[in-house]
Amino acid sequence: MRNLIDITDLSIEELDGLIHTALDIIEKPEEYAEKCKGKKLATLFFEPSTRTRLSFEAAMLELGGSVLGFSEANSSSAAKGESVADTAKIVSCYADIIAMRSPKEGAALVAANNATIPVINAGDGGHCHPTQTLADLLTIYREKGRFDNLTVGLCGDLKYGRTVHSLIAALSRYKNVKLVLISPKELRLPDYLKTKIIEKFQMECVETASLEDAIPELDVLYMTRIQRERFEDKDEYERLKDSYVLTTDKLEAAKQDMIILHPLPRVNEISVKVDDDPRAAYFRQALNGKYMRMALILKLLDEAKKSGTHAKPFECQDVIFDEHPCNNARCITQTEQELRHVCKRTEDGELCCVYCEHKVN
Amino acid sequence: MRNLIDITDLSIEELDGLIHTALDIIEKPEEYAEKCKGKKLATLFFEPSTRTRLSFEAAMLELGGSVLGFSEANSSSAAKGESVADTAKIVSCYADIIAMRSPKEGAALVAANNATIPVINAGDGGHCHPTQTLADLLTIYREKGRFDNLTVGLCGDLKYGRTVHSLIAALSRYKNVKLVLISPKELRLPDYLKTKIIEKFQMECVETASLEDAIPELDVLYMTRIQRERFEDKDEYERLKDSYVLTTDKLEAAKQDMIILHPLPRVNEISVKVDDDPRAAYFRQALNGKYMRMALILKLLDEAKKSGTHAKPFECQDVIFDEHPCNNARCITQTEQELRHVCKRTEDGELCCVYCEHKVN
Amino acid sequence: MRNLIDITDLSIEELDGLIHTALDIIEKPEEYAEKCKGKKLATLFFEPSTRTRLSFEAAMLELGGSVLGFSEANSSSAAKGESVADTAKIVSCYADIIAMRSPKEGAALVAANNATIPVINAGDGGHCHPTQTLADLLTIYREKGRFDNLTVGLCGDLKYGRTVHSLIAALSRYKNVKLVLISPKELRLPDYLKTKIIEKFQMECVETASLEDAIPELDVLYMTRIQRERFEDKDEYERLKDSYVLTTDKLEAAKQDMIILHPLPRVNEISVKVDDDPRAAYFRQALNGKYMRMALILKLLDEAKKSGTHAKPFECQDVIFDEHPCNNARCITQTEQELRHVCKRTEDGELCCVYCEHKVN
Repeated sequence: MRNLIDITDLSIEELDGLIHTALDIIEKPEEYAEKCKGKKLATLFFEPSTRTRLSFEAAMLELGGSVLGFSEANSSSAAKGESVADTAKIVSCYADIIAMRSPKEGAALVAANNATIPVINAGDGGHCHPTQTLADLLTIYREKGRFDNLTVGLCGDLKYGRTVHSLIAALSRYKNVKLVLISPKELRLPDYLKTKIIEKFQMECVETASLEDAIPELDVLYMTRIQRERFEDKDEYERLKDSYVLTTDKLEAAKQDMIILHPLPRVNEISVKVDDDPRAAYFRQALNGKYMRMALILKLLDEAKKSGTHAKPFECQDVIFDEHPCNNARCITQTEQELRHVCKRTEDGELCCVYCEHKVN
Repeated sequence: MRNLIDITDLSIEELDGLIHTALDIIEKPEEYAEKCKGKKLATLFFEPSTRTRLSFEAAMLELGGSVLGFSEANSSSAAKGESVADTAKIVSCYADIIAMRSPKEGAALVAANNATIPVINAGDGGHCHPTQTLADLLTIYREKGRFDNLTVGLCGDLKYGRTVHSLIAALSRYKNVKLVLISPKELRLPDYLKTKIIEKFQMECVETASLEDAIPELDVLYMTRIQRERFEDKDEYERLKDSYVLTTDKLEAAKQDMIILHPLPRVNEISVKVDDDPRAAYFRQALNGKYMRMALILKLLDEAKKSGTHAKPFECQDVIFDEHPCNNARCITQTEQELRHVCKRTEDGELCCVYCEHKVN
Repeated sequence: MRNLIDITDLSIEELDGLIHTALDIIEKPEEYAEKCKGKKLATLFFEPSTRTRLSFEAAMLELGGSVLGFSEANSSSAAKGESVADTAKIVSCYADIIAMRSPKEGAALVAANNATIPVINAGDGGHCHPTQTLADLLTIYREKGRFDNLTVGLCGDLKYGRTVHSLIAALSRYKNVKLVLISPKELRLPDYLKTKIIEKFQMECVETASLEDAIPELDVLYMTRIQRERFEDKDEYERLKDSYVLTTDKLEAAKQDMIILHPLPRVNEISVKVDDDPRAAYFRQALNGKYMRMALILKLLDEAKKSGTHAKPFECQDVIFDEHPCNNARCITQTEQELRHVCKRTEDGELCCVYCEHKVN
């Protein structure tokens, strides 16, 4: 592995390795302070994201490396219409590793297929955001000491929330994780995720619309934002929204050692008053994100040094070229110049785009 | 002190200490070239300002540290509605010290109350801009050799010009400083400043509308810009504006050792031809700003190391919570999520907002 | 020489020196890894350009220096109306060398005349872009082993393409270079360039509208983009455009050791399929750009150290002040505050603006 596009690119062993490295960094930061001396991270952010970008930049600087890049599409040649592929090729001349954020689903994979240096997906539209999941996992590990035997509540927008989807995928690999899916009916977890992950890995799972009912049994509560735009019936939104805001009141029913996570930025879905509660782990989660990114940068640079040449994209994969065009309007195939449509068959026999993983027909 | 929000946060002794450090840096820069090795400055600029931002970045780089941040709100999560408090908490995970610029008055104080690292106010709307005052003071010291026994002319927009207000506050602490306030009647120094500072500290002070009349007696001439927008009567503006432009002609009547200061950027209020006059000190002033920022970064990092834990906001202050809401439209209390209104009683018995220092009633 | 504004500022000997340094850097990068330790490059980009900016930043970082700056006008004080001259003076306090990109023709020269540190023109509107030409030249040298005895095809927009104009100027100094100018009649090379360079230096030159006819004899093919906006007759554009797109088909007739160059970013003027052809040298060209910028930074910092004081602008030049105002709407003289109009007489007796080099009358 030279790139990180999707959290499932990492085996459990690799995840354990990253966590191990992160813990070692936390314990002995000075031993890592020069590990990336002379190395350069390119942060290619086609849409703004302070937290993620600064976390990557802090990670590289704390490893003794340096940083270049852009923080929005306007400051880049993308404004002149340069393709993601060309940007990746060019930046390979200037840096040693890329962290890319894009509103286009599949953009990071296109970059990885064209760069000659490792690419980390720092978020590709609604598709994947694997380093957020790394932050989530290290936080669970540091706070709870384990990944198995946990009851994990996921609250809010479970339909569109990519961090929730990735976290479920990651947790599915551990034993005895019970999921409590807390959302209004409009924003329930999509069926394909239930089939593909929860059923397949036989995870225990309950659904509820009530945060208050669910909270007492949780070891971990993962909050996300409910956006007004997601509701067709705005009255329904007004009626519901407060019940998905975490307050000190609602917290009273929770376990004393429950932890509260949130990918941040929050708007108002967690009351500021909750911040003073020791169970509020979301700022520690942001800090953990930095350590996991440090571990990841080290790992990918190390693998790149070993592996040398770059494999041809899709060389060892069973894919179909050009026959089934992807229709997802947010997919990178819709805008990237001369990009061939490529699809693969999933385990359940459906065809999906290799870039955005939407179904094709 | 761990933060610098307002110039009066610094005692005279502390100011002297900063000037002493700055002079030492100027003399022996190589001794400071690694002082901040491994340290990171976050420049959080919610509105653009080349000069101030680059000055801070140059300062940190010349101390051997590194820099991350953003240069306008669009490149930050603020576009998604993240609060200043959350940004400050998050960035505390990524950096060792923050320099923040915001259009909201009081934003830097909110940041300081939430960050776990030192915060420097790099300008909060029309409120404070203390590091500009540090640049002004070092320049006066280096050029004139003293702070007392000076006749200081302040010319232009004395009503809204925050750098002028801060400089008056800083100079009020020295002996025998005479102020010459040069402005059109529309832009005179506000009465509350006259009462609170000039009268209180018994500074000698004259007001005039004529730069030409005032110039012969000045040791220091501090120029600021007069903006057309400030005038209700645009004809009045047209009639007046040229008399507040400093030209080589007007300079003929000035002392040979007078110095000209300007916070920059200028538009046209100082003729470019004046730049060649040795009395034009405004570019040297910009350079001095860098040295004072270096001294300040060193001091705050040093204090942070010593003091360890963070005091609770307003813990030792006599303040009133929630009773008197601030009505200033530019105050951070108007937009920051769940921020309590807090006011304090000034020496003259009035209540003012702790964030923006506007009167409340 | 302390600045690089136009490629012809460099003598052949200096160009050879830069190429020699670049080759040495390529061979022994570790010997250069600390050459600029403690030095700062300011990248002042008043308009965005990923490739050029990141190339400069990578260059400085690989020399052990650091970088500050801005990547678009909005993040700078230019938004408040600061002049280029003032920006250059201020940034001279914060950095050791400037790379400036601006939409205004002549902006880099104004900066150089006001900065107290070296200024590199990283593109000033449609005027000059000398470091692109440095990248072009190193690529030709590394790929072909020589600058003389070459047949060089220049294809596309030869009327407005500044990189083409600069490359012709640079190649005119070598022996036995044959130019093949390939363009639609709307976008032919301007007559003044034919007179001033091609005729003057007696370069062999043919013009054609057909890329396919021209390709077999070329040693170098320099592609540029044809923009729809350039055509009055849009039907003509539609009819022509495909014939100036380089495809694998058209490449079949080319020499096996021909090289394809492109200043990038491309839109669609070179098919992505061509990228896999070993003759496609445009990504190697981007890499070479970095090495030449490293060599240039080293040279200019070295010269600045030696030369010490700054010569007064136009001191040793035969120029005329104020008499002949420049009318070029894109010239820096149109917007820069209090900038005097200055013109010089060219070898053929015409008067032109010293900033944008447009004819004045």
